[in-house]
Amino acid sequence: FPSKQAQVQTTIFTKMSALAAEHGALNLSQGFPGFDCSEELQALLAFYSKGHNQYAPMAGVPIFKQSIADKTSLFYGIDIDANKEVTVVSGATEALFCAIHCCVFPGDEVIMFDPSYDAYDPAVRLAGGIPIHLSMDAQNGFQIDWEELARTISPKTRAIMVNSPHNPTGAIWTENDLHALAEIVKGTNILIISDEVYEHIVFDGQKHYSVLLHPELRQRSFVCGSFGKTYHITGWKIGYCLAPEYLTREFQKLHQWVTFSSATPLQYALSDYLKEPAHYLGLSAFYQRKRDLFASAFEGSKWKLLPSHGSFFQCMDYREISHEKDVDLAERLTKEIKVASIPISVFYEKAPGDTILRFCFAKSDEVLLEAAHRLVQL
Amino acid sequence: FPSKQAQVQTTIFTKMSALAAEHGALNLSQGFPGFDCSEELQALLAFYSKGHNQYAPMAGVPIFKQSIADKTSLFYGIDIDANKEVTVVSGATEALFCAIHCCVFPGDEVIMFDPSYDAYDPAVRLAGGIPIHLSMDAQNGFQIDWEELARTISPKTRAIMVNSPHNPTGAIWTENDLHALAEIVKGTNILIISDEVYEHIVFDGQKHYSVLLHPELRQRSFVCGSFGKTYHITGWKIGYCLAPEYLTREFQKLHQWVTFSSATPLQYALSDYLKEPAHYLGLSAFYQRKRDLFASAFEGSKWKLLPSHGSFFQCMDYREISHEKDVDLAERLTKEIKVASIPISVFYEKAPGDTILRFCFAKSDEVLLEAAHRLVQL
Ligand SMILES: CSCCC(=O)C(=O)O
Ligand SMILES: CSCCC(=O)C(=O)O
Repeated sequence: FPSKQAQVQTTIFTKMSALAAEHGALNLSQGFPGFDCSEELQALLAFYSKGHNQYAPMAGVPIFKQSIADKTSLFYGIDIDANKEVTVVSGATEALFCAIHCCVFPGDEVIMFDPSYDAYDPAVRLAGGIPIHLSMDAQNGFQIDWEELARTISPKTRAIMVNSPHNPTGAIWTENDLHALAEIVKGTNILIISDEVYEHIVFDGQKHYSVLLHPELRQRSFVCGSFGKTYHITGWKIGYCLAPEYLTREFQKLHQWVTFSSATPLQYALSDYLKEPAHYLGLSAFYQRKRDLFASAFEGSKWKLLPSHGSFFQCMDYREISHEKDVDLAERLTKEIKVASIPISVFYEKAPGDTILRFCFAKSDEVLLEAAHRLVQL
Repeated sequence: FPSKQAQVQTTIFTKMSALAAEHGALNLSQGFPGFDCSEELQALLAFYSKGHNQYAPMAGVPIFKQSIADKTSLFYGIDIDANKEVTVVSGATEALFCAIHCCVFPGDEVIMFDPSYDAYDPAVRLAGGIPIHLSMDAQNGFQIDWEELARTISPKTRAIMVNSPHNPTGAIWTENDLHALAEIVKGTNILIISDEVYEHIVFDGQKHYSVLLHPELRQRSFVCGSFGKTYHITGWKIGYCLAPEYLTREFQKLHQWVTFSSATPLQYALSDYLKEPAHYLGLSAFYQRKRDLFASAFEGSKWKLLPSHGSFFQCMDYREISHEKDVDLAERLTKEIKVASIPISVFYEKAPGDTILRFCFAKSDEVLLEAAHRLVQL
């Protein structure tokens, strides 16, 4: 049986979470909260377990689409049309997959910036597209090299993948980044696929610059969002895609064959929940405290912390501790000191010689301190 | 913006359900129960709304995979390995999409029998494959022409789509059908993608012949299942794929980029629920009574009922009532007498001149009788 994805393996998240479970390690690898969602949201799900169990409309439950449009309008100060610009999907992974598949023709190029989330490249390949990987440099705060991007685009470029707050690095885009990208794509047919699942987790008083805020970008963007990170429900797998009508139409044509619709009781529970801005406005402060708590435990140690401006990930350079490859060290730490992390090199087409591991700090304070305690003793 | 699916429209189910809602029609079009799932299952979901809200493993919650394996083993009298042969997905649509995408290479042919469920053809095309449509004949009880199939397979044939109990016709496979297919594929590399979401709805004491029951077929089959139809939860969008290890491996490589994993609280609720065979063993009798109730209301009318051996669909020939096209009549009945149905011709590549509408009888007795009452007056 010939494999269509001969080189593809199980995702690093599945691998490390399984290894963590096997060795009873503290799991700071796969990005999910080590605590439950709010009791209010649990109660809403319990409430909607009655009478809301049949197919949702293909594009989403109408009041839920309206809630998403309203929340987005309020947060970004823009207008969103719930009927024409919103599609509910089964998690941001499906949003990314459908956005890529609905626009990438065989032979099209899609540009992404490494380290890039591991679902982008295979989705492009499966659509018959050609992933073009540009590198971001850890020494340079994982900034995008705009001149290199300008040189790389061509008539074959169908789309550019954008991701801020950035996974795995915690870098975030500034307003200047939006302008730089807009200057490059202006006058072309290039589309933007923007992964913004950490939109509500941005630190130090900074702001999330969504591509929705820039008209030149917005009119050509699929914005892939999710509630998993925002409401501590990574297991609900409810996400959405925001896109102008002409792109939403194509997106939905794909979505209807991929999952058709998403879980009805979960959509109803969220419809109510996301009307209250307090449910997400405190999130940055919540995670900033965890980031700082975790970081403080490494003061004076040999671990060099890279800046984390958003997301719930902390990257750390271990060059003063070990010269092992990051994949080897991540595995060894899971087995020996029982702390699981994610090696950064797997997110590169051509991995640099970096010595960086990613740790998820969406965990209880106790787990964070215990993990740090084990790590500083290396 | 060039459309990748220029010919593709919104699915007929979305269209007819929207039209039904617009006109306040009794909705016997899209296939979903007009009643809620059991209170026991509602209570399980409420219970698991606490503490089960983070990512499930990519292939499914282990105890849920085990429950699926056990249920299948018990029902079919075969062994299923929960770890190697089961993948949980976000509905049977995702199972079909991933099964097709993980094995169909550009240029591969996939054979399907019309009328065929509307998600098969576009999924094959999106994978770069070539759908080959063979027709089944209403006059002949929608039987497969095995000789035609034998003539049609070639080295380019990658897979054959199988669907029993059959949507939209309600036809079911016999043991002879399994043998006929096995004879044809024996010695080839042809795979089978078997849509068996109505496995527990088979009438008149007949049996569901799953491809799992035939070793020659099972070793080359992706079996796409779902709990939506079995437990009256079409809105949960939890399905699964059963396949031998070498196919499951490829399937999961696709699934991890499409949705990654499926809703955790729903998986836990179902884990418990499907341990009890009583929850599905009565389903055939439940729907047979509804089928018969609905049918009895047409006695002496001009509607000609086609046999419904399984599924929750009743096809009816209206040739003595009208000569309109089925798409036109379905629309007109929704608007005028306010009964929505599904025209059969949309499931054909080359629609025959049939005059058949599909009605879903998974509705309350009152709705079924009222719909029939309106229809017989035509
Ligand atoms: C879909 S599992 C991966 C979760 C995640 O986004 C991460 O750990 O980076
Ligand atoms: C996924 S919506 C269609 C439901 C269904 O299977 C049908 O009506 O045939």
